[in-house]
Amino acid sequence: MNGDPGGQPLVPVLAIVGTGLIGGSFAAALRRVGQAGRVLGVGRNPASLQRARSLGLIDDVASLAQAAAEADLIFLATPVGAMAPILRDLASLLRPDTLVTDAGSTKADVARLAQEILGERHAQFIPGHPIAGSEMAGPEAADPMLYHGRKVVLTPFDDTPGVLQHRLIRVWEACGARVSLMTPEAHDRALAAVSHVPHFLAAAYMTQVIRADDADTRLNLAGTGFRDFTRIAAGSAEVWRDIFLSNRAAVLRELDDFDQALQLLRAALEGDTDPAALETLLEQAALARRFWGGRSQMP
Amino acid sequence: MNGDPGGQPLVPVLAIVGTGLIGGSFAAALRRVGQAGRVLGVGRNPASLQRARSLGLIDDVASLAQAAAEADLIFLATPVGAMAPILRDLASLLRPDTLVTDAGSTKADVARLAQEILGERHAQFIPGHPIAGSEMAGPEAADPMLYHGRKVVLTPFDDTPGVLQHRLIRVWEACGARVSLMTPEAHDRALAAVSHVPHFLAAAYMTQVIRADDADTRLNLAGTGFRDFTRIAAGSAEVWRDIFLSNRAAVLRELDDFDQALQLLRAALEGDTDPAALETLLEQAALARRFWGGRSQMP
Repeated sequence: MNGDPGGQPLVPVLAIVGTGLIGGSFAAALRRVGQAGRVLGVGRNPASLQRARSLGLIDDVASLAQAAAEADLIFLATPVGAMAPILRDLASLLRPDTLVTDAGSTKADVARLAQEILGERHAQFIPGHPIAGSEMAGPEAADPMLYHGRKVVLTPFDDTPGVLQHRLIRVWEACGARVSLMTPEAHDRALAAVSHVPHFLAAAYMTQVIRADDADTRLNLAGTGFRDFTRIAAGSAEVWRDIFLSNRAAVLRELDDFDQALQLLRAALEGDTDPAALETLLEQAALARRFWGGRSQMP
Repeated sequence: MNGDPGGQPLVPVLAIVGTGLIGGSFAAALRRVGQAGRVLGVGRNPASLQRARSLGLIDDVASLAQAAAEADLIFLATPVGAMAPILRDLASLLRPDTLVTDAGSTKADVARLAQEILGERHAQFIPGHPIAGSEMAGPEAADPMLYHGRKVVLTPFDDTPGVLQHRLIRVWEACGARVSLMTPEAHDRALAAVSHVPHFLAAAYMTQVIRADDADTRLNLAGTGFRDFTRIAAGSAEVWRDIFLSNRAAVLRELDDFDQALQLLRAALEGDTDPAALETLLEQAALARRFWGGRSQMP
């Protein structure tokens, strides 16, 4: 993929706020295809910034003010909870032609923050969510291929200029990602369903297992089904607490829907047991999962 | 590992009833360590039996009567639902020194069947459950290492002679498995918790996802968390229907307990949200899962 006709990279100066797995991988992905010129790293942890520089993820450590003055694209790769003070600083520093985006797991709250804090500059901010990650963290875990073949959701405002949207889409495509545009609310609802609720259920399930009298026997007999079903429950409690709280309404709504589906299967198992109805429900679930595995090439 | 002092293998003549993944892997595992002499294959599907012979899993195809006349150990690797007629035939054929075992996923029902059908010969039957498997099926999927490092639960009757128990333990240990002895009820309760309930929840969750108006958007944004959480839901609807029905009481009890744990997490998220309580619950679940991963070396 080529940048501008003059041989300019897509992002002449890139600023990464938060140089861990997500930010570091974004810089590495753009560097790999020659689409990032100079990369500035902004962050609160000097040791982490130095490691990012030693690893070649960033060229220089910078303040937010320096980044705002020089960068063409500012990529916020911090937890959603840390975004408000950064946006507050950026509000007075942002040049009119700078594009800002983020990588937070929820989008309605980020969009609201950007509108409230950036005021009329909010249209320069395009909330985003690359659906990729890893159990690992820190700049050492950065991987230029992390976003390759993965979905990235962007939730531009109604008044975001098309030219800015196209620039950001090209940048993500240069990282190998496939971009979808949707509203922040549709994103949060879909992510509540396919990411947040599974995590909530896996955590509730682990809670049940460890509270049982025979917890040790149980854990001792657990096999590969248990392993895969509960893997997500091992994630950072702090990160997931923030995700659940920031997407609370959608998560609770999805949990209600899950409860209905659970009662449906349960009704086929208890009382006047209906083996055919139970098998039909299991078969529909199995076919949907196999179809998804085939389509996504993620068995 | 050595067999009898005279150089005899642990199982001079082994009969496998059902020569698919489970039965074929058992024969292959014992052959690998030289602990099976002659292997007879019994089954209803001639093509499958011939494939098992071509693959070297069995030496000869045999009838159940031949197997009962010649085998030192009869391994029933059929679905639990197919076991009653086999036991009925064996009841009149079984020699007093032949050991019989099975590999079914539930044990109280199998133990009950054996007592009802085999009468005073029931003590020769030791119900068993190797906690190992694979999405694959058929003799081609047989793997001599399938049981290596895996748990096998045996649920001998109170009047099963110790010498028979020890023989079967040595046989499974020769396959590389680690044997636990427990009552059929304790097995079924623990398996309901760590295997059947996760499957039931994963199926209910898939049911919810596919019934949503925006099911396609959801499946389109699903990532690796979704992939692992739902993998078990792709399993055979027929097999899992039988497992749920045969272990119904324990599964329903565990689903009640799961619901309590879910309400506990939910209460921390809704109403007067308590971020600290939510984080504590998530942290306990995460620590338990990480501890299990470390202990079982199954991250």
